[in-house]
Amino acid sequence: MEIDVDKLRHSAAHVMAEAVLHLYPGTRFGIGPAIDDGFYYDFLLPKPITLEDLPAIEKEMRRIISGGHAFVRKEISKEEAKKLFAGQDFKLELIDGLEEGTISIYEQDGFVDLCRGPHLENTRQIRPDCFKLRSVAGAYWRGDEKRPMLTRIYAYAFASKAELEAHLKMLEEAEKRDHRKLGKELDLFSTHEEAGPGLVYWHPMGGRFRVALENWWRDEHYKNGYEILFTPHIGKSWLWQTSGHLGFYKAGMYSPMQIDEDDYYIKPMNCPFHIMIYNNGVHSYRDLPLRWAELGTVYRYERSGTLHGLARVRGFTQDDAHIICTPEQIEDEIAEVLRFSLFMHKTLGFKEIKAYLATKPAGDGSVGAQEMWDTALESLRKAVDKEGLAYEMDEGGGAFYGPKIDLKIKDAIGREWQLTTIQFDFNEPERFDMTYVDADGQRKRPYMVHRALLGSIERFFGVYLEHTAGAFPVWLCPEQVVVIPVAPAFDAYAKELLASLNAAGLRARADLSDARMNAKIREAQGKKIPYMLVVGQREMDEKTLSLRMRDGRQENGLTMDGFIARVRDLVEKKSLEL
Amino acid sequence: MEIDVDKLRHSAAHVMAEAVLHLYPGTRFGIGPAIDDGFYYDFLLPKPITLEDLPAIEKEMRRIISGGHAFVRKEISKEEAKKLFAGQDFKLELIDGLEEGTISIYEQDGFVDLCRGPHLENTRQIRPDCFKLRSVAGAYWRGDEKRPMLTRIYAYAFASKAELEAHLKMLEEAEKRDHRKLGKELDLFSTHEEAGPGLVYWHPMGGRFRVALENWWRDEHYKNGYEILFTPHIGKSWLWQTSGHLGFYKAGMYSPMQIDEDDYYIKPMNCPFHIMIYNNGVHSYRDLPLRWAELGTVYRYERSGTLHGLARVRGFTQDDAHIICTPEQIEDEIAEVLRFSLFMHKTLGFKEIKAYLATKPAGDGSVGAQEMWDTALESLRKAVDKEGLAYEMDEGGGAFYGPKIDLKIKDAIGREWQLTTIQFDFNEPERFDMTYVDADGQRKRPYMVHRALLGSIERFFGVYLEHTAGAFPVWLCPEQVVVIPVAPAFDAYAKELLASLNAAGLRARADLSDARMNAKIREAQGKKIPYMLVVGQREMDEKTLSLRMRDGRQENGLTMDGFIARVRDLVEKKSLEL
Repeated sequence: MEIDVDKLRHSAAHVMAEAVLHLYPGTRFGIGPAIDDGFYYDFLLPKPITLEDLPAIEKEMRRIISGGHAFVRKEISKEEAKKLFAGQDFKLELIDGLEEGTISIYEQDGFVDLCRGPHLENTRQIRPDCFKLRSVAGAYWRGDEKRPMLTRIYAYAFASKAELEAHLKMLEEAEKRDHRKLGKELDLFSTHEEAGPGLVYWHPMGGRFRVALENWWRDEHYKNGYEILFTPHIGKSWLWQTSGHLGFYKAGMYSPMQIDEDDYYIKPMNCPFHIMIYNNGVHSYRDLPLRWAELGTVYRYERSGTLHGLARVRGFTQDDAHIICTPEQIEDEIAEVLRFSLFMHKTLGFKEIKAYLATKPAGDGSVGAQEMWDTALESLRKAVDKEGLAYEMDEGGGAFYGPKIDLKIKDAIGREWQLTTIQFDFNEPERFDMTYVDADGQRKRPYMVHRALLGSIERFFGVYLEHTAGAFPVWLCPEQVVVIPVAPAFDAYAKELLASLNAAGLRARADLSDARMNAKIREAQGKKIPYMLVVGQREMDEKTLSLRMRDGRQENGLTMDGFIARVRDLVEKKSLEL
Repeated sequence: MEIDVDKLRHSAAHVMAEAVLHLYPGTRFGIGPAIDDGFYYDFLLPKPITLEDLPAIEKEMRRIISGGHAFVRKEISKEEAKKLFAGQDFKLELIDGLEEGTISIYEQDGFVDLCRGPHLENTRQIRPDCFKLRSVAGAYWRGDEKRPMLTRIYAYAFASKAELEAHLKMLEEAEKRDHRKLGKELDLFSTHEEAGPGLVYWHPMGGRFRVALENWWRDEHYKNGYEILFTPHIGKSWLWQTSGHLGFYKAGMYSPMQIDEDDYYIKPMNCPFHIMIYNNGVHSYRDLPLRWAELGTVYRYERSGTLHGLARVRGFTQDDAHIICTPEQIEDEIAEVLRFSLFMHKTLGFKEIKAYLATKPAGDGSVGAQEMWDTALESLRKAVDKEGLAYEMDEGGGAFYGPKIDLKIKDAIGREWQLTTIQFDFNEPERFDMTYVDADGQRKRPYMVHRALLGSIERFFGVYLEHTAGAFPVWLCPEQVVVIPVAPAFDAYAKELLASLNAAGLRARADLSDARMNAKIREAQGKKIPYMLVVGQREMDEKTLSLRMRDGRQENGLTMDGFIARVRDLVEKKSLEL
């Protein structure tokens, strides 16, 4: 029988509470819920503990588990509960907060806890090797900094040892791949508290990645029928009043700047600017669909506590696009934008992609006729079906202005990240009175769809750093080749080879520092540079270049022309191979 | 003997005043100075006049000129002057404003004017075909809107008929090439008063030009040893206090936005952000020089009255770079940045380029040791000498923080435009305490040079539109080819050809509208599209494509492969030819 992992986590929390009471008599208990990858419990301990005390608690938990104690549920009155938990102030406070009527408690091995349940049947169902105490932290009772600080012990817990181990391995990997750490090690980007947190500075090597990525992005957009716009970063309040953002999005916007007594806002979104261009001319149905893209840098307020590396920032460059089309075109356009998004993600090497469809929110807050919502949702559904994409419904989860699809990719260590969003907008076309002239000569309202494919260039860079652990595909590598002379005598020859590589358009450098060859190779491997050309005497090398790769492989007997052709081919094909 | 054109213009103004008096007795006179391309005179006329009255005035002027009257100077006392100009209120007011002593007057043909001179000797020296009355405008006496409104008559005047005609032709050309007009006709960009004046919106075709230009710009920067950075558009007040901009540049900056109780400013310059990246690490002399470039969009306050199309805007993208190097490297680096700038301008087709060197301002306001100014100026001088570049000195015209070279290009109709600026900065390296570790282990201060090559992408686009009259070189054309079927029966074949062109990476479209072939050709020529492929039956066309070019030339007998290869070659070479 498969075990219910939530029950297991919650039951293990009770066992941990019992173990803590055994080891620290007089402990008072807060709450101990199951969480995503395990559980925690908050205690007021008679003495402080550290990480070093956790093994003893684990050991006591295993002893209790092996006792094969049943988890026994009882229902008692509030009065009985208050007597039972006398001296346990936090529990008494919880009891006071409960509705009138009976209260459920659970007991195992003589330890009783106030609990709604449900639990496992017996402590033996918790495998002694499927949990691991993780950390100790301070936590205010009820999250209120005026109440006592309790000690929270976190634990991982899974249904099996294999799952626990996989999770621990994933965490270890995630720590190694932390994009903030890699960003420093590879000197890719920085943020600066003193100049404004959450604002990203791209260093030369990060810039090279971004230029390679954006060049590809622009090429593919042009190939796929998009035009690329450039619009300002600020707009007068008229623009944001008209778009409605000053009404429904003000909390995400910065305070205004005054220019000539007018209020200007730095843009949190690109859409009103694209609409200004659309409304600059008259459009016939013959001109539609329009696919207008922009790498538009936007600024949004995020609380400083929530800022995190490249994942959550205050300024970011959306790889934005707006599709403007007739109702007759919407189904094809949505199918096309989804197909294109999947093509882009697959080129980047993401294999598992899942869609999340969000529909009309309940209540009166939403805009747009019901048939537009129906048509829009239908086109979204058909598009995911056509691509055979796995999807989940998020009923009522759309914005007030339209339904959407979000795409989440699974990264190399199994984590999901949302990148793409494809959103209908029934709001702005109305507010800006966007129209086109149909075949019948009538002015009609077009559909408008917002789309960010990678989401934001900054956040994507963070995700991609963690996905690849910094070992980018050759076509995106800031440095593709480093030439390493075996000894200083061959520096001149190394420079010659470098010149050929650069002339061929490869991003290459020669390491002519004082370090020894092996140190240079290690340094290049550390920088995740795909190719190291180790060169000695021209006469010996001419037909037998010695190539080392960042994955540890070595090759000999390559010619320079052959090597260049190979790398250019990989770049041309956007290959993920070395 | 060469004629002094200023004397000529001023003398012609006197003649015009005399002619006006003959035709409009009772006229009262304001002032009549020489200006850049002619002269004007302000009159209080007994009745209003229009453009249609100017030929009669011109005719009377020619009559006076042909009389061969001498311009006679006399010196008289203030009292005599007041008697002489009795009834001429404006002249009397001018006399009152003059210092005590004698006053000079000039007389020709019995007409006397208050005037400092000098003048020509005789009216005959004004060639009757070397001036032309231009326009009539209202002008307040002494520019004060509370004083009477006078009638100002403008005129062009040159030393010779040829110069006048050349000037008139240039003006006619300039009007045709006005980038605001071309921007609308070619649907390249727009600005929007209601969303904020001086902020540029790039439309699809403008976007294609910009992408082609920026792609080339990035490629060449990488080839020439630059790295490309991306930095935020906003920075906390700490950054601008440290840089000094809040002190010496505040009038050019917008008011701050508040974020979490801190003041943030939208950037008027990119430099402090590049310095933050520099200061993020420790730099050895071995790492220098650094050449860091960014297409950085900045926002600066300009009075709304001074805004003009793309030429003067409030938001623009500098093609910025900062060179950071040791004192030993500065001479080579300056030579290199100048060489690179000239290479870029020449690729764009500018043939005449002139340098303007600005040196240390007088007084105490400037920063930096004298020897740094000397070294810097020396390196600038050597660089222009090395390139054999014509230059002018602007003694004392440098900024307080360092000397500079500006480059001005001459456009196709002879106007000068400043694009490039190369500026030393002795201020920010001090304020941000920038250092590098020299070979002797000591921390030393690097040189920093700001450089904008095209200046701003927006302004450059305006200049280039006027330089080329919208007929861009093929490699920069938003649309390179349009396929035009001779009749609707050949639409399918036109689409096939279009697919081949697009697959070959050409920016092409097929005109499948209802219009007739000739109208399509005219429309494409109007859009300055370099190539029109006029296609009929496949069987007939296969070896004999009919090509029309925007300059009116026609070619037959081309194969598709031959045509594609030719266009790709022109693009590859950044050729200016068709």
